[in-house]
Amino acid sequence: MSVPENAVKYAKEHEQEFLEDLKALLRIPSISTLPEHDPDMQNAAEWIAARLKDLGFDEVRIIPTDKHPVVFGQWLKAGPSAPTMLVYGHYDVQPTDPIDEWKSDPFEPDIRGDDIFARGASDMKAQVIAHLAAVTSMMRTSGLPINLKYMLEGEEEIGSPSLEKFMLAHKDLLASDLCLNVDAGILAPDTPAITYALRGLAYFEIRVQGPSSDLHSGRYGGAIDNPALVLCELLAGMRDNEGRVTLPGFYDAVRELDAEERADLAKLPISDEWWQSQAGVAALYGEKGYTAGERASARPSLDVNGFLSGFTGVGSKTVLPSKAMAKVSMRLVSDQTPEQVHQSLLEYMKAYAPPTITWEVEEISSCMPAIVERDSISVQAASNAFDAVWGKRPLFTREGGSVPVVGLIQKLMGVDCLMLGFGLPDDNLHAPNEKQHLPNFYRGIETYIRFTHEIVS
Amino acid sequence: MSVPENAVKYAKEHEQEFLEDLKALLRIPSISTLPEHDPDMQNAAEWIAARLKDLGFDEVRIIPTDKHPVVFGQWLKAGPSAPTMLVYGHYDVQPTDPIDEWKSDPFEPDIRGDDIFARGASDMKAQVIAHLAAVTSMMRTSGLPINLKYMLEGEEEIGSPSLEKFMLAHKDLLASDLCLNVDAGILAPDTPAITYALRGLAYFEIRVQGPSSDLHSGRYGGAIDNPALVLCELLAGMRDNEGRVTLPGFYDAVRELDAEERADLAKLPISDEWWQSQAGVAALYGEKGYTAGERASARPSLDVNGFLSGFTGVGSKTVLPSKAMAKVSMRLVSDQTPEQVHQSLLEYMKAYAPPTITWEVEEISSCMPAIVERDSISVQAASNAFDAVWGKRPLFTREGGSVPVVGLIQKLMGVDCLMLGFGLPDDNLHAPNEKQHLPNFYRGIETYIRFTHEIVS
Repeated sequence: MSVPENAVKYAKEHEQEFLEDLKALLRIPSISTLPEHDPDMQNAAEWIAARLKDLGFDEVRIIPTDKHPVVFGQWLKAGPSAPTMLVYGHYDVQPTDPIDEWKSDPFEPDIRGDDIFARGASDMKAQVIAHLAAVTSMMRTSGLPINLKYMLEGEEEIGSPSLEKFMLAHKDLLASDLCLNVDAGILAPDTPAITYALRGLAYFEIRVQGPSSDLHSGRYGGAIDNPALVLCELLAGMRDNEGRVTLPGFYDAVRELDAEERADLAKLPISDEWWQSQAGVAALYGEKGYTAGERASARPSLDVNGFLSGFTGVGSKTVLPSKAMAKVSMRLVSDQTPEQVHQSLLEYMKAYAPPTITWEVEEISSCMPAIVERDSISVQAASNAFDAVWGKRPLFTREGGSVPVVGLIQKLMGVDCLMLGFGLPDDNLHAPNEKQHLPNFYRGIETYIRFTHEIVS
Repeated sequence: MSVPENAVKYAKEHEQEFLEDLKALLRIPSISTLPEHDPDMQNAAEWIAARLKDLGFDEVRIIPTDKHPVVFGQWLKAGPSAPTMLVYGHYDVQPTDPIDEWKSDPFEPDIRGDDIFARGASDMKAQVIAHLAAVTSMMRTSGLPINLKYMLEGEEEIGSPSLEKFMLAHKDLLASDLCLNVDAGILAPDTPAITYALRGLAYFEIRVQGPSSDLHSGRYGGAIDNPALVLCELLAGMRDNEGRVTLPGFYDAVRELDAEERADLAKLPISDEWWQSQAGVAALYGEKGYTAGERASARPSLDVNGFLSGFTGVGSKTVLPSKAMAKVSMRLVSDQTPEQVHQSLLEYMKAYAPPTITWEVEEISSCMPAIVERDSISVQAASNAFDAVWGKRPLFTREGGSVPVVGLIQKLMGVDCLMLGFGLPDDNLHAPNEKQHLPNFYRGIETYIRFTHEIVS
């Protein structure tokens, strides 16, 4: 079939134009968690909506939610006999702190070697722009062989609090035969891969209060408990020396890996040495009996994402702080649920918090773990597209991160949601000096074009 | 002897004037740890120097150090046959954070009831002004019966880093027969007390580094160790469930309390219920076998003064932080030394820090513990002065806080350093809403006058 070839040719001839699009979107500091960036959120949504209108989409809307709007666009001119695909993505990005560790301005994209550096480069503005470029290339040549709907949200980095309500309210508008989530990546520049499972998330803030106000550590130290130390003890007790989480019942619902899946995962080129080098650590850590790759994707985990208490500036302040807080999150695997884990955490706190302090646990965000079938039409189409662009079949992998929409789409729309994107594991997601590997960006455009045609071949 | 009575009468007639002096000094935000307040440090020093010059001191100098200057003033007109007393104090104050918990501007003194609220009110501008008021009252009436030297430093709240060097460089200038440290307090408005022992301090910052940069907690969680959790484990391991510090050899040099001293301490009106109420906690904490009062003054302790890692803002950031830090300090009793405790901490870290992280320990400040003889001339003079003003003998107490100058004066000048001041335990030292009880301030002026005359009686 020659149809994709025209679009692929167009894409290659317009790489510079698509790169400029990417830069333009990266320059908008759409940080969803910081209220002072609300106008930037609106700007980013409008920028994408304008592009969809330019492409001739039938309907383009910026639909408000309780917080940040969803960009919706649809093009249904392939007709009722062609399948309809819903493409999910997000236009929001993480905060930039610690800002002093960035080598270039996070919102002035900087190309160094084969990489473009900016906050949101890999997560996930390059993926959004690559798909838009693929659609552009098809529309400007032989046409788009399927009906297409975009749902691009602005709250992914804060746990997608409005998405379920939005999807329930617009169920008919979103109705599709299959779904593509472009918020994804491959394993290495030359190692295509399809992600069939995602971990879930349960994210909490734990607050501990001791004395009614900060005390002088000389006057009171030794007589009054120290809330910072109590919180340390509570957090330290949440894992044992085998690397397992100790919250009561935490592992009860965990689906164990079988031998076949472990063998498939073992084919992935991510040795323990690779993990160590990626993270820049002297030694790995984790649950005994599993490889690092298994631990980071097929096993649940618990992390302290942040903690704060007392005086943390330069010099000394001899204070016995009155309170301490920590952000603690768990990554979940099927068939754990955030609700069960929340209960486990509360049980743990009730059992171990001492009478010298009071405490509260707030759930900040949560997400179900998800698994997509490997024998679906969309997974097969993606395999063939990868094969054509990269010259090799993709590996099958599980992702350690959480993508709330995948579970939601399966639950609310009854369709699988394929993950297909072109980030890399060392793209510094959520960290300083985030980047996107540009050769992947261009191959990604071609892969999206071929994937779209494979759906109807 | 009628000599002090004239000065006491003068003091009572000029209370309003002395209160205005106190307010003026409290309005200068002399926070020694924050470089942006360096000009305020200079202003505070100049304000005091001007007062000494007005009083007719023979020599008044603002002597620079590596950081904040020392105000020195001397009046030697009592002649060579009269004793010379060195009065120590400090004009610097603690930072004001958390600022939103203050009920009034920390640097606009606010009188509510019998208390004056401002940062530095009790610690220790009211004590400095009370002594200046006593000297003023004597000089303006029957005269000062002893020679006097003031040494008022600007670095007490940051651990007095320049003081030893300053005292060594000006040993002849400071030479005295006895020393008075006015940075002190009593136990309750109607309970005079003399503090004969002080705890020492060893204050550290511990920094832990895991991955070379912040990582996505979804991608890496479970495979890579979490430096915040490692630091929690290390801090939690520094005490056992008997409330004792576990650092190797920590208690080796601790002088145990004997039965007589425990009996004297038991006379103090500070029951465990009193400690609980002062701190506003539901339950006390600490080393088994000792009362709260003993634990907070005659036993060493370990506190986390602050910790920080990762994301601590509003909402969620799914980060596996690359580093974590904590401020950790120990209060020491005779005959512990900061050097020994530093070694204990390093031994502990070497033994228990896991290979998944690197760590460093920085000593921020330190201070020797100290004990003053109870049968000295100055202690007896203070007892008599308290008796005259309060109508009762003072109790003898140990102080949980650290006053570097006391150990230094004993070491460098070979004289005891009496603690005599009029703060209260609930003055919110180092915390929001610091205050000074004004009736104590006025009684304090009279006590300083009578104490000065008792020295030569």
